[in-house]
Formats: sequence, C-alpha cells, structure tokens
Amino acid sequence: MKKRIAIDMDDVLADATGRFIEYAQERLNWHITREDLNGHHNWAGIMPDQESEIRSWLHEDGFFRGMQVMPDAQEVLEKLHDKYEIFIVSAAVEFPLSMKEKVEWMQEYFPFVDWRHLVFCGHKYMFKADYLIDDHERNLIAFCEGQPLVYTAPHNIYLTDYQRINNWREAAMFFEV
Amino acid sequence: MKKRIAIDMDDVLADATGRFIEYAQERLNWHITREDLNGHHNWAGIMPDQESEIRSWLHEDGFFRGMQVMPDAQEVLEKLHDKYEIFIVSAAVEFPLSMKEKVEWMQEYFPFVDWRHLVFCGHKYMFKADYLIDDHERNLIAFCEGQPLVYTAPHNIYLTDYQRINNWREAAMFFEV
Repeated sequence: MKKRIAIDMDDVLADATGRFIEYAQERLNWHITREDLNGHHNWAGIMPDQESEIRSWLHEDGFFRGMQVMPDAQEVLEKLHDKYEIFIVSAAVEFPLSMKEKVEWMQEYFPFVDWRHLVFCGHKYMFKADYLIDDHERNLIAFCEGQPLVYTAPHNIYLTDYQRINNWREAAMFFEV
Repeated sequence: MKKRIAIDMDDVLADATGRFIEYAQERLNWHITREDLNGHHNWAGIMPDQESEIRSWLHEDGFFRGMQVMPDAQEVLEKLHDKYEIFIVSAAVEFPLSMKEKVEWMQEYFPFVDWRHLVFCGHKYMFKADYLIDDHERNLIAFCEGQPLVYTAPHNIYLTDYQRINNWREAAMFFEV
C-alpha cells in the first residue's frame, strides 16, 4: 500500500507570500521583500494601519486564483503522485470564496490530482497520513501520527522543531523520487 | 477526551432529496415523492432524457443554500456538540460553488459549529473519527477505524450492512444525548 502524503497549498504548492508582496506593491505602493517578512506570523500585523485592507484581499475574487506555482512543484508532485498517495489539504474554509478558486487552480497546474484528493478544512489533526508538508506550526504540532515536515516560508524561518524542506527539489530528495 | 463524530451534510443534516423533489416539480413539472426514489442511487438516472438538466442543478447558485434542515437536526446536533467532538464532512469538492453556500448554510442553521470543524472533500476514508454518520455506502464501506452509521435516505433504504439511524431523534438515543 502506498504511503500517504498530505500537502498544504498556500506557501507550499502556491506562492502565497509572493501574492501578498505583489498586492502590497500594487495596492499600497509598499515595496517589501521576502526577507522583510522573516519571522512574521501575520502579514496584516506588519502594517497595523493597513491591517483591515490587507485582510480584505484574502476575501477578494482572484487573490488565490492568481497565485504562482512554487518552483519545481509540478514536476516533483507528479513524481510523488506515482509513488505515494497524495492529498492536498488546505485550511481554506476560513475564506469560503477561495475554495472554488483553489479547485480551478489545482485543475490548471496539477491536473493529475483528482478532485477526490482535495480537502478544504480548518483543523488538520483529524487527517490520517504518513507525512504532512505544511508551513504552519499549528498544523505540524497537532499532526501526531505521521511525520510533520515544515516547508520553508518567511514566517517559519526560525522554527527548529521539525525536519525542514526548503523547496520542491529537496522534497524530491527526501521522498526519493 | 471527547469521542469524535464525522457527520455528512446532504441527506443527513440538509434535506437534499427534498430539494431535488422541489426542483423536479418547479423545473420539470414532475411530481415525485420520496417513496418513488427508494432504491435509486442516482437522481439524474431516473429520467434519462432529463439527466443533463438534473445534473446542472447541482452547479446552480442557490441549490445547496436553499436546502431545508432535517427535522430535529439543530436541537440534537447542539446536544451532540456538547458531549462529542463534531466534524461536518461533506464531499462537496465535486461542486466547487457549493462550498461557499455550505459554509453560509452551516453558519445560519448550526452557528455553534466553528468553521474549523467543517471539511469539504471527496473521499472520506482518510478522516479519523469514532463514528461516521453518512447516507452513502461508498463512504461507510471505506470507514474502517470507527463505527459507520447509515442515515436513512431513499437511495440507501435497502442497505442492511450498517447500523441505521432513521432520523435525528434516533441519533439522540444512539448517542445518549
């Protein structure tokens, strides 16, 4: 039986941080780099005066749909898909509009992943898998039965408690595909 | 630690069959009863000539949002929510528009269920729970670790392999709430 890998979307398959930087530049004329975001868990909190506007982007049409794919994610996920059972598990219920966009996004960039293998949720601890690749400590810490793997994003750069995957090339090495 | 119950939406919390009957009457002037649907696994297949129209309803705005709540579901789920850990698990990814409507529907009728306890998926076998209440055999048969409970709907009326819950009053008795 294939081992099962649960894989997050934002900041793992999809460049959510890049989308935030793009919106910050377009909407607020705020030129920020990925390095500026290191260690910050809450984008909206970086500029308290703009917090409500920044939060509103997440509820806007197209915010999720327009994200770039992480480098090498398509090629590596297709290889993983042959060797492992893949589920894409995204805490998207907080942003109800995003789910339709996320289904379309997956169909465009990862058409080999069947819709039955997409999961939109809040918590992730009730998901059975052998591995979880995620960028958020709150998901990794609650993932008790399998191996949590932190996918590097600016907000988790100082987290040391988990095996780290810095990019999809490293994921391919870890999973030997 | 509270035991965990995974609960389906359509034809368990929400009267999906009633909604289908309502649309069949309004759109096709087809007067059908719940009894007429007994043993039919596929609404759209009952009237092959209308199959594509019937299928299109599932992708229409408002089809899911306008469903009635099953009798006693609100009162019983609120009691269950005190004693058990509740997750609402709906195979809604097939109908991407429905997910936003389902979040709103839950907020209206079951506001005590936090969004983090809503799950939209395809398969359900990778969900860890002590019980699954569902109307579809394909979900019950794959639910290996906990106890599957079939919630009575016309299409499962002849299914005999599972403990049956006919209505939410019976669910309250089963779970002793």
